[in-house]
Amino acid sequence: MAEDLGVTISRDEDFSEWYNQIVVKAGLADYSPIKGCMVIKPYGYAIWESIKDFLDKRIKDTGHENAYFPLFIPEEFFEMEKEHVEGFTPEVAWVTHGGDTPLERKLAIRPTSETIMYSMYAKWIRSWRDLPLLINQWANVVRWETKMTKLFIRTREFLWQEGHTAHATKEEAEEEVKKMLDVYREVMEDLLAIPTIPGYKTENEKFAGAVYTMTVESLMADKKAMQAGTSHLLGQHFSKAFDIMFEDKDKEKKYVWQTSWGMTTRTVGTLVMVHSDNKGLILPPRAAPIKIVIVPIIFKDGKEEVIGRCNEVQELLGRKYKAKLDDREGYTAGFKFNEWELKGIPIRIEIGPRDVKENKVVIVRRDNSEKIFVPMNNLLQEVDKILEDIQNSLFSNAKKFLEKNTFLPKDYNELSDILNNQKGMAKISWCERGCCEEKIKDETGATSCCIPLDQNGLEKKCIVCGQEAKKVILFAKHY
Amino acid sequence: MAEDLGVTISRDEDFSEWYNQIVVKAGLADYSPIKGCMVIKPYGYAIWESIKDFLDKRIKDTGHENAYFPLFIPEEFFEMEKEHVEGFTPEVAWVTHGGDTPLERKLAIRPTSETIMYSMYAKWIRSWRDLPLLINQWANVVRWETKMTKLFIRTREFLWQEGHTAHATKEEAEEEVKKMLDVYREVMEDLLAIPTIPGYKTENEKFAGAVYTMTVESLMADKKAMQAGTSHLLGQHFSKAFDIMFEDKDKEKKYVWQTSWGMTTRTVGTLVMVHSDNKGLILPPRAAPIKIVIVPIIFKDGKEEVIGRCNEVQELLGRKYKAKLDDREGYTAGFKFNEWELKGIPIRIEIGPRDVKENKVVIVRRDNSEKIFVPMNNLLQEVDKILEDIQNSLFSNAKKFLEKNTFLPKDYNELSDILNNQKGMAKISWCERGCCEEKIKDETGATSCCIPLDQNGLEKKCIVCGQEAKKVILFAKHY
Repeated sequence: MAEDLGVTISRDEDFSEWYNQIVVKAGLADYSPIKGCMVIKPYGYAIWESIKDFLDKRIKDTGHENAYFPLFIPEEFFEMEKEHVEGFTPEVAWVTHGGDTPLERKLAIRPTSETIMYSMYAKWIRSWRDLPLLINQWANVVRWETKMTKLFIRTREFLWQEGHTAHATKEEAEEEVKKMLDVYREVMEDLLAIPTIPGYKTENEKFAGAVYTMTVESLMADKKAMQAGTSHLLGQHFSKAFDIMFEDKDKEKKYVWQTSWGMTTRTVGTLVMVHSDNKGLILPPRAAPIKIVIVPIIFKDGKEEVIGRCNEVQELLGRKYKAKLDDREGYTAGFKFNEWELKGIPIRIEIGPRDVKENKVVIVRRDNSEKIFVPMNNLLQEVDKILEDIQNSLFSNAKKFLEKNTFLPKDYNELSDILNNQKGMAKISWCERGCCEEKIKDETGATSCCIPLDQNGLEKKCIVCGQEAKKVILFAKHY
Repeated sequence: MAEDLGVTISRDEDFSEWYNQIVVKAGLADYSPIKGCMVIKPYGYAIWESIKDFLDKRIKDTGHENAYFPLFIPEEFFEMEKEHVEGFTPEVAWVTHGGDTPLERKLAIRPTSETIMYSMYAKWIRSWRDLPLLINQWANVVRWETKMTKLFIRTREFLWQEGHTAHATKEEAEEEVKKMLDVYREVMEDLLAIPTIPGYKTENEKFAGAVYTMTVESLMADKKAMQAGTSHLLGQHFSKAFDIMFEDKDKEKKYVWQTSWGMTTRTVGTLVMVHSDNKGLILPPRAAPIKIVIVPIIFKDGKEEVIGRCNEVQELLGRKYKAKLDDREGYTAGFKFNEWELKGIPIRIEIGPRDVKENKVVIVRRDNSEKIFVPMNNLLQEVDKILEDIQNSLFSNAKKFLEKNTFLPKDYNELSDILNNQKGMAKISWCERGCCEEKIKDETGATSCCIPLDQNGLEKKCIVCGQEAKKVILFAKHY
């Protein structure tokens, strides 16, 4: 493979450049002519489709239905919920003209759809019989970022799903918030082999308009944290603003309790940042659009037999898995190996004339480069086992990495060292006051990840101010 | 069912109001606070998902990959293809501000993505090895209509897929155009049970920027025609404008040949307009999100047995079909019948105490109201057969309707009567000149549907001017 086709920089040397190279060179995404917007290329989109299919099924299994609401939001809707308008207005893209004609009132392109959706909910919900209302939307959203953008991680337009539910009671709504957070945990852990830490965002970091926000956080290979999915209890903030009331069984008119929750194309970038290496992408088998690539090793003699065997193997494995046969002419086997390693295909199968004679194939694992000789008569069972093993081993390695890089600093100096030097996550005890959180942020550039559900290890005193500690909290540098 | 829940007007009395009532009352869509934009409600979106799943599979089976390109298009891109800019600029929505900051140059919201996609193709395509490039995108698009909008049929934002391909030769590109038109025919005929007429659009009616446009046309129950999907040969119009060149096997630099093709959420509206009746929607089984509804008929005695049997039937049929058990309390069976008829569920199964005793169920077909008594031991096979029969009979009825309402006028007066009085499609011989086409349009309000592939019946003279006829062409009032 020509030098400029492969990744030319190591992960340790320049993580950011390494990441960009993998995304572009593996064909996941490309820069577009619109500043801050990306093109998701077919291979990157196929990974997003894996995530989408998995998540869509779980969203439907848990009783939700998909729908679609307008891209545009009237300016006045934003203004109806105070925190929401303050949170989103600075980064809204505005449509002012239709054709040559100026609009009477400008329209926002949705940065998130609470307001446009809830204006409809107010119309649709009349009685307790209409509850719970469980709707999800797959859509594009636009946030006019002023910070540096980064492919998949921060772009002015991105794809996501946003769930928006309405319930008769606070208890039901809180149960929904937790249930959907757990679905996000499943996507991250069971599909993408990325361990997560579930917890609550602080007041400072919660969604603009929420009572509270739950999050699943994960740790990238450069020891920065990433928010993978969030689930919000909106309480009655929006139902009061939009007048979403129902007649309850007791004939009383009541405001509904609401939740919203979202997961985005950012997960594709997260996947790259957690598992990949200096040869390129490493995909967990369950999320890989192509699970297996078969490469014929051609010499002068026996070409026909090798190609025949490759076809046979593709036919066999193809019944169960997406298996690609790379029989392109004019490329060396070595070139092909590099290309498919760059693209992160979990298993490579090599077949040469000798393998045909000996009725075996060579399997090479992408995750650890292990070579395994497998007899033909046992191939499918062995592939099953190896794919499962790659999936599990990616997860357990990432889990070890997360544990190894989660620190329990004894004092503020140690905390400051961990965060300033981007050593990983710091788990500390905290007085629950915004001022201490902000001090850490100001002095280290790190932000709080979450107040983890697992509150083990609470000390007596806040590590910042020495006052009584109320919560264990995690801090890290963040994407 | 309360009067205002059902359809209160007959199809013959006021087709437009009848259509709107079905769409809104069956829960397919609703009007939104944004003028000209609709909300696709869960039930309507589930029908769209049936279409999307079928079409996406066919798009992938034919070798295409999905990708995603930015929502925004730089103003200057539009201006690069002359016909394209003239065709689309009048109905473009423009973004002028990001947050409080005016943009340096305004951005169009895509009305279609040729220009933004081909600016990338120019970068990606280098050699014959990169061809054919076969990409599809599922997306929302915006066209700032000034005409009256109509739910699903004409809205300022709609959902669609747009395929965009690049080929080494004109022949390959033309083959692609035909192949994808045939995929659209499959969606309409095999999934939605709507017969189509494939053909070519005239110069006047073709896509802005195409060499030619192929279309599948269908006829609604009010005898107006609908364009169901279009497939365009773009030739080298865009490759020359965007400089998309490849080095061919002969080492020569050549412009690629391109196609684009699209199908939209309009198909959901088309489905309503073709099959439904005065009781509401009628869904062809293959496109129905719920194939079967089971309604228990409860009397004072035997409630437990009836519910038990209903569960048993749902369990049995649910292995193969989406079957819903409507065991809501506090609603009469009659109310439930009306509701599920309004929603167009293909099969209703009624089970009362006597049916339990006699080991049978009552099946009621939505399409023709036929009642069929089916013994339990034969239920699944019978349901298979009935669903298949409903699918086929909807198609053959629609086909008979199309044939019955396609006329062969002998002279211009007869043509004018057919079109002015919206009697159906008129098949005529035509000199192929735009002036004769425009005369018909001006004098009748009808437009050309297509120059059908089937050119049987060509007369000597153009029905309008009497000059030599070159083509058989179809005219009708259009949506």
